[in-house]
Amino acid sequence: MRLSELSERSGLSTATIKYYLREGLLPPGERITATTAEYGDAHLRRLRLVRALVQVGKMPVATAREVLAAVEDESLDHHMRLGAAVWALPHPPGPAKEAPETTAARRTADELLRRLGWQYGLEVGPVSPTYGMLVNALAALARLGYPHAVENLLPYARLAGELAVADLDLVEEYETPAEQVEAAVALTVLLEPVLLSLRRLAEAEESHRRFRGDSS
Amino acid sequence: MRLSELSERSGLSTATIKYYLREGLLPPGERITATTAEYGDAHLRRLRLVRALVQVGKMPVATAREVLAAVEDESLDHHMRLGAAVWALPHPPGPAKEAPETTAARRTADELLRRLGWQYGLEVGPVSPTYGMLVNALAALARLGYPHAVENLLPYARLAGELAVADLDLVEEYETPAEQVEAAVALTVLLEPVLLSLRRLAEAEESHRRFRGDSS
Repeated sequence: MRLSELSERSGLSTATIKYYLREGLLPPGERITATTAEYGDAHLRRLRLVRALVQVGKMPVATAREVLAAVEDESLDHHMRLGAAVWALPHPPGPAKEAPETTAARRTADELLRRLGWQYGLEVGPVSPTYGMLVNALAALARLGYPHAVENLLPYARLAGELAVADLDLVEEYETPAEQVEAAVALTVLLEPVLLSLRRLAEAEESHRRFRGDSS
Repeated sequence: MRLSELSERSGLSTATIKYYLREGLLPPGERITATTAEYGDAHLRRLRLVRALVQVGKMPVATAREVLAAVEDESLDHHMRLGAAVWALPHPPGPAKEAPETTAARRTADELLRRLGWQYGLEVGPVSPTYGMLVNALAALARLGYPHAVENLLPYARLAGELAVADLDLVEEYETPAEQVEAAVALTVLLEPVLLSLRRLAEAEESHRRFRGDSS
């Protein structure tokens, strides 16, 4: 197909596709004449993945280029290829400096992961941005007078584990490794607001159940 | 206590406290001399609540003033007073215009809430910002080729319901209605990054369990 058809079928403007070509996120098409090139289904699939990383995941283009290299690296197993994409997604910044709350929060996070037996989290512990996000969130809770003990966090972690099973079940519905990576990125990011809004709706429901008519 | 002690015990600068006084978020202290006023424990508690709303919840000052009025309105029951605070928290914007995906997403959200029997969500449906956030997130999924059926969302909603039970259990550990409102706001907001980071850590764990060593 020509660029115009690629644009139509991918839903991306030709200018955006040319930008991705220039940045090396999309391999060049097969040159037909001096001014036209032919693109195939592989280009269409790649554009969906690029869109998942850059437009949905808000990943910087330079990071996306590295991630795409990892996703294509057949010397890596499927877990690493999925992980390269999902774990490179931007996170809120980790703790800036070691406030007293941060040290305590780090200890809590480590103990929580140890109790859960979440090896992956421990293995990459000090450098994982997701781990940094957790430590930061726990430090913020403590700073505002809501210290969270490991015991309070375990039910939350157990539910997060069940969410992850549901997430990976969805990912596995896709056939090819490339589609699975794309789905893992898109669903990780796009289901976050679904989860947060459902939690708030459920809180309203639970508050109604407990407190309605209670004017204490 | 004097302003300086109120500042020290609340952890807020005197400039911030004076700003809250001017904006009507904090009632004036008892005037002692022309230049000094005396503040009590009620001021200290109120400052914690204001901080939860404005600094943690990123609520605009004008909204916080309305919320504080509702929280103090003894003609409202406890559910409404909690809700006034939590549901006034800012959300990502709802759907801007009725794209075809938005209409379908709204139908899915309505059907989901009906199946769950979540009355509160249905009751305030079209105006609730949380409902708008859900519709928006479902429309974004569909736009990127990941349409979500009610059946896919039910397990997610069930887990969100369990999270809400854990949240309200924590809120009920606080004694007074004012402390509960404060905790509801702070925990709703501060536990969101905890939840999202635990979900990503759990996904890494689950991906490792399923795919490690699988280079397909």
